Amino acid sequence: MNPQFILKGSVVYSTDKDHIKSIEQGYVVCDKGICRGVFQQIPEQYRDFPLLDFGNQLILPGMTDLHVHAPQYTYRGLGMDLELLQWLSTYTFPEEARYQDMSYAKEAYSYFTQDLKRSYTTRAVIFGTIHNEATIELMDQLEATGLVTYVGRVNMDRNGGENYEEASWEASLQDTKEWLQAVKNRYQNTKPILTPRFIPTCSDSLMKGLGELMQEKGLRLQSHLSENLDEIAWVRELVPASDCYANAYEIFGTLGNKEFPVVMAHCVYSDEREMEILKRYGVFVAHCPSSNVNVCSGLAPVKKQLEYGLRVGIGTDVAGGSSINMLAAMLTAIQVSKMYNRVIDRECPPLTFEEVFYLATLGGGAYFGKVGSFQEGYEFDALVIDDSKIKSTRSLTPRERAERMVYMNEECMITKKYVRGVEI
Amino acid sequence: MNPQFILKGSVVYSTDKDHIKSIEQGYVVCDKGICRGVFQQIPEQYRDFPLLDFGNQLILPGMTDLHVHAPQYTYRGLGMDLELLQWLSTYTFPEEARYQDMSYAKEAYSYFTQDLKRSYTTRAVIFGTIHNEATIELMDQLEATGLVTYVGRVNMDRNGGENYEEASWEASLQDTKEWLQAVKNRYQNTKPILTPRFIPTCSDSLMKGLGELMQEKGLRLQSHLSENLDEIAWVRELVPASDCYANAYEIFGTLGNKEFPVVMAHCVYSDEREMEILKRYGVFVAHCPSSNVNVCSGLAPVKKQLEYGLRVGIGTDVAGGSSINMLAAMLTAIQVSKMYNRVIDRECPPLTFEEVFYLATLGGGAYFGKVGSFQEGYEFDALVIDDSKIKSTRSLTPRERAERMVYMNEECMITKKYVRGVEI
Repeated sequence: MNPQFILKGSVVYSTDKDHIKSIEQGYVVCDKGICRGVFQQIPEQYRDFPLLDFGNQLILPGMTDLHVHAPQYTYRGLGMDLELLQWLSTYTFPEEARYQDMSYAKEAYSYFTQDLKRSYTTRAVIFGTIHNEATIELMDQLEATGLVTYVGRVNMDRNGGENYEEASWEASLQDTKEWLQAVKNRYQNTKPILTPRFIPTCSDSLMKGLGELMQEKGLRLQSHLSENLDEIAWVRELVPASDCYANAYEIFGTLGNKEFPVVMAHCVYSDEREMEILKRYGVFVAHCPSSNVNVCSGLAPVKKQLEYGLRVGIGTDVAGGSSINMLAAMLTAIQVSKMYNRVIDRECPPLTFEEVFYLATLGGGAYFGKVGSFQEGYEFDALVIDDSKIKSTRSLTPRERAERMVYMNEECMITKKYVRGVEI
Repeated sequence: MNPQFILKGSVVYSTDKDHIKSIEQGYVVCDKGICRGVFQQIPEQYRDFPLLDFGNQLILPGMTDLHVHAPQYTYRGLGMDLELLQWLSTYTFPEEARYQDMSYAKEAYSYFTQDLKRSYTTRAVIFGTIHNEATIELMDQLEATGLVTYVGRVNMDRNGGENYEEASWEASLQDTKEWLQAVKNRYQNTKPILTPRFIPTCSDSLMKGLGELMQEKGLRLQSHLSENLDEIAWVRELVPASDCYANAYEIFGTLGNKEFPVVMAHCVYSDEREMEILKRYGVFVAHCPSSNVNVCSGLAPVKKQLEYGLRVGIGTDVAGGSSINMLAAMLTAIQVSKMYNRVIDRECPPLTFEEVFYLATLGGGAYFGKVGSFQEGYEFDALVIDDSKIKSTRSLTPRERAERMVYMNEECMITKKYVRGVEI
């Protein structure tokens, strides 16, 4: 474990949202799980490290999926004919209810965790279901993959329909505490995160209770924010004291702080007032472009969020998003930003490739600390990618090849994957 | 050649734009290149045909790519940072000019034709360059693949920049005639099609000459229509007598007729007046959603075009579109129609899966005659697809698996491909 080694290949990584380093025949040094930088020659002090030469293959930082629903993996790519609230009650809640059955949960989660292991993702922030036992099963399976994740047991004490609602806010809190107790010190790479689904399914008392629990135990929290216009109108009715959806979370004390940051998925309709709140609390926005298109939510102003200085990453949001493939999500992010520019605001330019590469690696990776880059001192998450099926008459830079890979991900293949310096 | 055989598997095909047949363990009968239908039991008269049993694999009709630029394949997935007119002069015209060099053309076209051979496409309508020799090379290579295609040598006598313009309209017409003579009776599966790039690059005299040539020789024609707002404004200046872009083509006599139909790519901004013209001439609209997003053209009203009764198929439009993968184009078509519904016209519903499957198979296939379905009497173009990498806890119908395949194409693999009954 924690080995020392060097990878050689065509290296591409972000240093910030506007800059990508692109290095032919670069040496990426891993020392006890930490990256020591990328070099054109092996520095003297690392001469004894074993060298793995990947020739012309691409070497990229691992990617962070900032928002994904593990139990929805079973119906990915199906049932994409409804908008959010109808989609939840028709497809989502009945499916999630099935995870009470542990034999179903074991099988379904094995497909999710095995596919996530072989994907571009090295870190993820994950929703489970309202079931303690199934969520522990999911965490056990994730721990076995070697991926690094936050996993949430979902809270919902209202509006879940007949079969997918907790008995009361007290029961929801009590079960959550039992789950936290059960997973305490159980894992190296898998951490619990509080997970109220969203305000429509969580009573005021439950939200307040989770806010207090968060504070008391120094926990992180994830939820959904301003995804769909009907949802936003509903939240306004449910929390009349709030002046915007983010303010409703703020009222309940569930926005965390910069040290224990919250992830809010979507933020499609977050205006200036909402962005101000998100910035103040250091909230991470999980931009979920595929989902926003599939369930017809809208075009999120992610370029504006970046320029405002928000912390932003990308979520695949399976099963609103149909695939856990981060490259597909990156492409949709670019495309959604172009449509935003074309039909909503001609003054707001599309995302650059630099920005979308940053979002998938360093932007989302920051939720886990120094993650998502090959700069000195970053945790060593790396992907080795064979793109040789994409023939070209041109001699391309590593950065150009990374761009092309996003547009033609079906032609690429992951040949090696490392998380914290460990091959998985 | 022209064999008789039966494929067994999970069969999915369109009968019209609103209906998909989905048959478990179906038998698809091929008799001398023609489909005899899909059966649950092998009919008596076909009992002697050899049976190829593909178990649980999917069997779909081949797909038609109604608009793709072969010479642009070299820079697919690159240079997606400009809008149409700047994109053409910066990336496209300099690249296409290189096909004057036959050693370049041979190599570049070999990547395109070999990849097209192993793609979901069995039929395609293709742009070449302004060069006779390179276009003949492309046609030779396509003929060798077994695919069925129309291929155009491009006409442009203005606005191509320094290195990519023909000397005069007379020279353009003369060279076109020589190319037609050279390819006459040369192929079984590859046909020439007249290809004025679009009005901004073709003088009135050239357009009129092509209109006459079309009429005289009973040829088909392909071009671009109403893709981008700047382009449309430019055409209005260039052809002041026209009352819309389609009317400009009409004035030059280049809209063909129902027997020799024209393909017009894009039609993003075609209004009622333009749709009326397209319908009257029986023009095929090549809907190119990936391209329309990538070069920021806009969201095409394809649902309205279908409901108006236009003939519509899908084009990948490489390199405006980044991939020749028709499944990726189908997904983008669904997504674009959802964004059209969300941000442009809430009264216009998104495309259904039935409609997008139809567009990729039967809708575009109709350009080639009875193509794109497994109904009795259709030419036998078929794909056998292994989707077993997509694990599921559910028992899915063949139609559900076809839908899921579109959302997760990178997990699928073509195992067999037939064109006109011949395995390629």
